[in-house]
Amino acid sequence: MSRQWASRLRRSLASLTTYDVPRASARARMHANENPEPWPEAVMRELAEVVFNVELGRYPDTSGRELREVLAARHGCELGRVVLGNGSDEVISLLLTALAGDPTPVLVVPTPSFVMYGHAARVLDYEVRDVELDEALQLDESAMNRALAGATICFLARPNNPTGSLWDRAVIDRLIATHPSVVFVIDEAYIAYAPGQSLWRVDAPDNVAYMGTLSKVGLAALRVGYAIAHPELAAALDKVRHPYNVSQTSVAIARAVLTRFADVQQAMVDRTIANRERLAGLFARLPGAHVFPSAANLVLVRMPDPARARALVEHLAAHDILVKDVGHLPRLSSCVRASVGTSAELDHVEHVLAHWT
Amino acid sequence: MSRQWASRLRRSLASLTTYDVPRASARARMHANENPEPWPEAVMRELAEVVFNVELGRYPDTSGRELREVLAARHGCELGRVVLGNGSDEVISLLLTALAGDPTPVLVVPTPSFVMYGHAARVLDYEVRDVELDEALQLDESAMNRALAGATICFLARPNNPTGSLWDRAVIDRLIATHPSVVFVIDEAYIAYAPGQSLWRVDAPDNVAYMGTLSKVGLAALRVGYAIAHPELAAALDKVRHPYNVSQTSVAIARAVLTRFADVQQAMVDRTIANRERLAGLFARLPGAHVFPSAANLVLVRMPDPARARALVEHLAAHDILVKDVGHLPRLSSCVRASVGTSAELDHVEHVLAHWT
Repeated sequence: MSRQWASRLRRSLASLTTYDVPRASARARMHANENPEPWPEAVMRELAEVVFNVELGRYPDTSGRELREVLAARHGCELGRVVLGNGSDEVISLLLTALAGDPTPVLVVPTPSFVMYGHAARVLDYEVRDVELDEALQLDESAMNRALAGATICFLARPNNPTGSLWDRAVIDRLIATHPSVVFVIDEAYIAYAPGQSLWRVDAPDNVAYMGTLSKVGLAALRVGYAIAHPELAAALDKVRHPYNVSQTSVAIARAVLTRFADVQQAMVDRTIANRERLAGLFARLPGAHVFPSAANLVLVRMPDPARARALVEHLAAHDILVKDVGHLPRLSSCVRASVGTSAELDHVEHVLAHWT
Repeated sequence: MSRQWASRLRRSLASLTTYDVPRASARARMHANENPEPWPEAVMRELAEVVFNVELGRYPDTSGRELREVLAARHGCELGRVVLGNGSDEVISLLLTALAGDPTPVLVVPTPSFVMYGHAARVLDYEVRDVELDEALQLDESAMNRALAGATICFLARPNNPTGSLWDRAVIDRLIATHPSVVFVIDEAYIAYAPGQSLWRVDAPDNVAYMGTLSKVGLAALRVGYAIAHPELAAALDKVRHPYNVSQTSVAIARAVLTRFADVQQAMVDRTIANRERLAGLFARLPGAHVFPSAANLVLVRMPDPARARALVEHLAAHDILVKDVGHLPRLSSCVRASVGTSAELDHVEHVLAHWT
């Protein structure tokens, strides 16, 4: 017999599955698009000292002001535009929740892209319009224009995950100008790996918001993401947002990193950019493989056929190297995504691939 | 001119204000229902060492499994029933989001109680039915029964904030049995201050869920709350929940406290329980004051009139002691809520009240 309250459950949940990534211990964890470089021990000592001084019994500031101040200064914008989230995931949900004013709000999202946009929108009963990327994994401008008619919100991950592609700026600018009633969210989670490519402008059109995160630059454990939005939209996000939505340990550590160890962090990013080219080279040597250009901390490679892609993933896994088979996604048949590892991890990958026949 | 996208905003937001509690530095912060006892330096050293060993660049487990295991063992229930939230606030929203299957879902909530239940429900376009407590600040059973007809969910904070009252168990049991299609959430955020009074039962009816938090027991900075629910409801919460919704520093510190420093934590709670009686005594001496019985880490006092209540709050504030004027709330005319302070803070309160005329 069904529970009597079960009929109260949101209908959308029946067709959704829980997003889960098993936490893996492996010699090379190249499956989750993290920055793989360990923080230097001296920095970790300093950050532990920061936590030693946190009053654990006391609530944080409701909006994480001390961290928002650093982010606002970094972006040269007013404090009121910056809203923190418990990771980008929460920021996505805040935007979708705040903008769900219509009976059936509409999300437009290029595909393949970050899966949480669609998942979070489906939870909230959005109509989700997936628009396939073109063959070059760039935006299909005319298909986007068609889908955006009457839409509510559009997330554009730039650089994109899982493709690593950097979508054409001119196309994005035209979409934004053509659809002023749609909120465009430029998600720059991976922008550290594409120096000089940020679309961030303090004088952006009012229907543009930006997202950033510390998760891809060595601080995934902290769960800190943020939006920079028009003040009216930022105020709406603040009403939807739970107060105290970022822990004080995260706020304090993040602030310490951004103000005192930004150079160390940049060096970690730079090493990963260099290693990206090395990893791309290792994959390019595989017979029949095509490596896509990447502006993120990942490499996307297309193998000659799905069986060969699966074999690559399994061969690496057998040697304790985790990468992701993304061949089930639109446009990515026979493709494998590998996050960039450390130099030592890539030594191991090189050795393992050299012995693969 | 209004922004073109502004019409997309959820209508409910227009009438809501952002929940904000300015972060205060004061000699006695007795306004936020925290546990005021500082953690011993030796414990903070150990917890800093825990953070030193966190891989900051790596995502946490998606569900905080290592902390959920400790909580499940503590409650003697299966792991699948325990869902972590970024503080109780997120747990409240997860429940409200998951159960919003009807076109107009209905929240029933006794008032006054924790304000986030109603705020989060209004954001999500719930109909909110506030049911006033009776004169004794207990549940009004017949009014609750009327409001619960056709309702979706009901939050019962036990002990309650801001009243400190411990609602009659028999009344709650009857409400639950009478309304099997309503999900009742027993929020035991303050239960540490009411030893032996928990309603938690592993064999509770399927329409009962429990909430707990570490925020009231010395770990507010971490933002860790949890639900224990029927497996079917827990699975729905997991679909709504963002993966990685509790930071790894919080998970690691919380686990260390619960497994290695539970005795220290209990001693902090015990000191606060003892100080609650002292604080109640200090207020009881004020001319015409009535102190309500409290099962939480707070004391609610009714002054002879609103002006006298305001004067009390201002007198304390003038001496750097923060408490909360709650006289605007239903049933709480002329009332002031003070969280229990440390012994040193109460020495100061005693001194300050002795000189108040």
